Amino acid sequence: MKIQIYDTTLRDGTQGESVAFSVQDKLRVARKLDEFGISYIEGGWPGSNDKDAEFFRRAASQKWQNAKIAAFGSTALAKNPAEEDPNLRALLDASTPVVTIFGKSWDFHVHAALRIPLGRNCEIIRNSVAYLKSKRREVVYDAEHFFDGFAANPEYALQTLQAAQDGGADIICLCDTNGGSLPSHIKDSIRRVQSVIRLPLGIHCHNDSDLAVANTLAAVECGVVHVQGTMNGYGERCGNANLCSIIPNLELKMGYTTIGPESLKMLTNTSKFVSQIANLPHGKNLPFVGESAFAHKGGVHVSAVIRDAATYEHVIPEKVGNSRRVLVSELSGRSNLLYKAKEMNLEVAENEEKLKPALNRIKKLENQGWEFEAAEASVRVLMETALNGEREFFAIDNFRVITDMHRSGEVRSEATVKIRVGDKSVHTVAEGDGPVHALDRALRLALNQFFEVLRSVELSDYKVRVLEGTHGTGSKVRVHIQHTDGDENWTTVGVSEDILEASYYALADGIRYKLLKEQDKTNG
Amino acid sequence: MKIQIYDTTLRDGTQGESVAFSVQDKLRVARKLDEFGISYIEGGWPGSNDKDAEFFRRAASQKWQNAKIAAFGSTALAKNPAEEDPNLRALLDASTPVVTIFGKSWDFHVHAALRIPLGRNCEIIRNSVAYLKSKRREVVYDAEHFFDGFAANPEYALQTLQAAQDGGADIICLCDTNGGSLPSHIKDSIRRVQSVIRLPLGIHCHNDSDLAVANTLAAVECGVVHVQGTMNGYGERCGNANLCSIIPNLELKMGYTTIGPESLKMLTNTSKFVSQIANLPHGKNLPFVGESAFAHKGGVHVSAVIRDAATYEHVIPEKVGNSRRVLVSELSGRSNLLYKAKEMNLEVAENEEKLKPALNRIKKLENQGWEFEAAEASVRVLMETALNGEREFFAIDNFRVITDMHRSGEVRSEATVKIRVGDKSVHTVAEGDGPVHALDRALRLALNQFFEVLRSVELSDYKVRVLEGTHGTGSKVRVHIQHTDGDENWTTVGVSEDILEASYYALADGIRYKLLKEQDKTNG
Repeated sequence: MKIQIYDTTLRDGTQGESVAFSVQDKLRVARKLDEFGISYIEGGWPGSNDKDAEFFRRAASQKWQNAKIAAFGSTALAKNPAEEDPNLRALLDASTPVVTIFGKSWDFHVHAALRIPLGRNCEIIRNSVAYLKSKRREVVYDAEHFFDGFAANPEYALQTLQAAQDGGADIICLCDTNGGSLPSHIKDSIRRVQSVIRLPLGIHCHNDSDLAVANTLAAVECGVVHVQGTMNGYGERCGNANLCSIIPNLELKMGYTTIGPESLKMLTNTSKFVSQIANLPHGKNLPFVGESAFAHKGGVHVSAVIRDAATYEHVIPEKVGNSRRVLVSELSGRSNLLYKAKEMNLEVAENEEKLKPALNRIKKLENQGWEFEAAEASVRVLMETALNGEREFFAIDNFRVITDMHRSGEVRSEATVKIRVGDKSVHTVAEGDGPVHALDRALRLALNQFFEVLRSVELSDYKVRVLEGTHGTGSKVRVHIQHTDGDENWTTVGVSEDILEASYYALADGIRYKLLKEQDKTNG
Repeated sequence: MKIQIYDTTLRDGTQGESVAFSVQDKLRVARKLDEFGISYIEGGWPGSNDKDAEFFRRAASQKWQNAKIAAFGSTALAKNPAEEDPNLRALLDASTPVVTIFGKSWDFHVHAALRIPLGRNCEIIRNSVAYLKSKRREVVYDAEHFFDGFAANPEYALQTLQAAQDGGADIICLCDTNGGSLPSHIKDSIRRVQSVIRLPLGIHCHNDSDLAVANTLAAVECGVVHVQGTMNGYGERCGNANLCSIIPNLELKMGYTTIGPESLKMLTNTSKFVSQIANLPHGKNLPFVGESAFAHKGGVHVSAVIRDAATYEHVIPEKVGNSRRVLVSELSGRSNLLYKAKEMNLEVAENEEKLKPALNRIKKLENQGWEFEAAEASVRVLMETALNGEREFFAIDNFRVITDMHRSGEVRSEATVKIRVGDKSVHTVAEGDGPVHALDRALRLALNQFFEVLRSVELSDYKVRVLEGTHGTGSKVRVHIQHTDGDENWTTVGVSEDILEASYYALADGIRYKLLKEQDKTNG
């Protein structure tokens, strides 16, 4: 059976505290969601701001393969006849095939927020829907606060749905706007709705109780055929129901069709794409699509996974476009490292013995506090060195970093770096917003003179942890550094009692990784 | 009805990719969870590493108000009689009142991983439980992969539980180890279990399908009385069931008792405390406890919230120790601060107004990334200053730190510090194992000349976090420093783009805290 997926990342998703899209961003996300196979894409609220109106203008001139574009807004204001209401006018001006309007289902809101009689609210709903239908739009009616309203005054909540049905709505979508409902309440309420409403029903959940996905699935089990949510669960407060979890649960576990098995393989990619456009980190622990969702630790466990993955995985990662990740760590054995080498396309078949020194070195360093689990680029540099011998791209003669605070309270950091490449030597100096930043800038200033490809490389993340130890600031620190060249992100690690030395190791390995990658490209 | 909460943050939680605790960290978290009212605290797997064994040694000598400490491990190995098995030996050596052991419920795992006959596995379970019971331990039996096992071979899965019951287990906990089950499968399986097993049942879920909380609540609806999970949902892959969501759902929505309404007010604080110790960011969107969980955006909505919060909030935020966030609100923080002041025995009753500047300053600094949740000594310094005026024990004229690496690879850090106390000035220099260590030593060398009491003070922990931002090493860093004088540990915080400046703030506040404490002692 087919379930319609209605994506509201571009409207309700942008209510999330750190989510913001430009018009251009919105169009890119919409095109991606269309390719992905989403049935409805809610692009915004054209009555609320110019940006959304602009999005609809540009969307109207594009061809959409799978999706219908929807404009979102409210029912008419109480003082206006529907045909003269500026909100409804803006919705029609958006020229979308689908219009979604929300109305009040909770008597309390009608009294406290609208301050009109209960009957008048029903009239407004009926008239607003009917007017949009008269303009030949497909109309989705969002029953705001439905589940709270139903708990408070079930008769009235049902009357508001009846009004939308009488107005000619195509779909009635029940909203858990405050996100407070439990699955049992969702189910009981929907069964009562079904005794009155004969239209296809939809569900729209928020995650305030950590139950948005469960509530959505519970609704589908009751016969709801239209599911609203956002990519990566973006949205106000604790977010909307996460389509990246709902879609694979429906497809792989419950036997429904949403976007189909071929498109499902694009799930991880689409999820990451949206987070990139939103400029938000992609949560490692996200179900199905996160980098850690299929990550395995520990030797025995890993050899079992390789023998039969079904033992330790709830779905096959490739079905959702994700992949198994074997973490290299002190617990890990040879099988982890071999697996990793294959993943990196290193030819190890006849070189297994050669990897031994790399494995020994990893174990030795991990005993000293290095952590390679999240530093795959450092592992790669180590393995390449073990397989093909050291390739010394550059050598460092010395560096010096000076930080001083003056009586004024101003703090300044300056770094000098002296490196050699072949028989050439260069000496640079730079300031930075702290000692590591200064060192990074001075090092980059020096290396860019020799390696053109490094100009595209940027430092994209920097993490520090103080390792266990009893002598406070004299403890060892572990630094993880992430670089990016636009196409790929890679992470390296460094450990030392001195934060600058640790940072230097990670910075240098990150640069070596990029140079090795370039060399492979040239050779290959 | 009472539901037992069993926290496994310190064991299963540490399987999470970036979660790591020192022994000292584990003890701090355990004490916090005990105060919070958790029934069982699983401290680790004593057979697997020395760190966990050390934790149990130290935990055994402490008094616990509410919690029973549990040691975790596996049933005996097939080749060993229970009484000669080193794993069981390690569990008994941990000297905990509770021992939790896991065994296989899935026939497939018995064949593929253990490679023993199905009947032998049941024998091992029964004998292992019986042996631990003979040593007068409370025994929790964790049925690993129970729900997958039950789906594959229900008869056999039930036999393994029967074996644990025959061995005398106190609680049988059903585990959704791969996190792939849906609530309907959880419910159906538990109902079958209840037809065979008369012991109290527990539930242990993982979040691979984004359903860990829902699955846990579904189990409780079926009559399960023991709930396992972790703080903030830490754990392998997509994490364990999040106790910070489960506890308030059970207490506020389903009518169960877990930690009780008074402790529930510490939920947000406890959640933040654990994330601070784990050195992980506290998710803004976390249900109930996240900074955005009760955040309201603009306009009509906000005025409605102020008129009647129930309109837009599923629970009252104060019940879980969180607060409504409406723009930059006067509502938040105040009660926390008063709570803390009382905790510190500061006399505020008639001075509430005087605390306002401290509150404002905390808010301002928190907006800039400072975090006072786990830095109570910084809060105390701020509050003392607000209540009694600034007491300037010392002033800094300047500091300078130089780190250099020579061609030999040797890295050296040296710091100079110039401070004034009254009209005396002193200038010191020191080396250290890194720039922060050198600064700490030089500062201490100077201050010890004036303040005898500082000689007993040591730096006992140092944590660094890079705050979210897009420019790598140029981002802001937040430093937490813990000092100890043998009797007491206290923690302070500092934030800057420069790690040395941030460290200086935290070091200086830590010293001020000690000097204030001494002054109070002299006065009192």
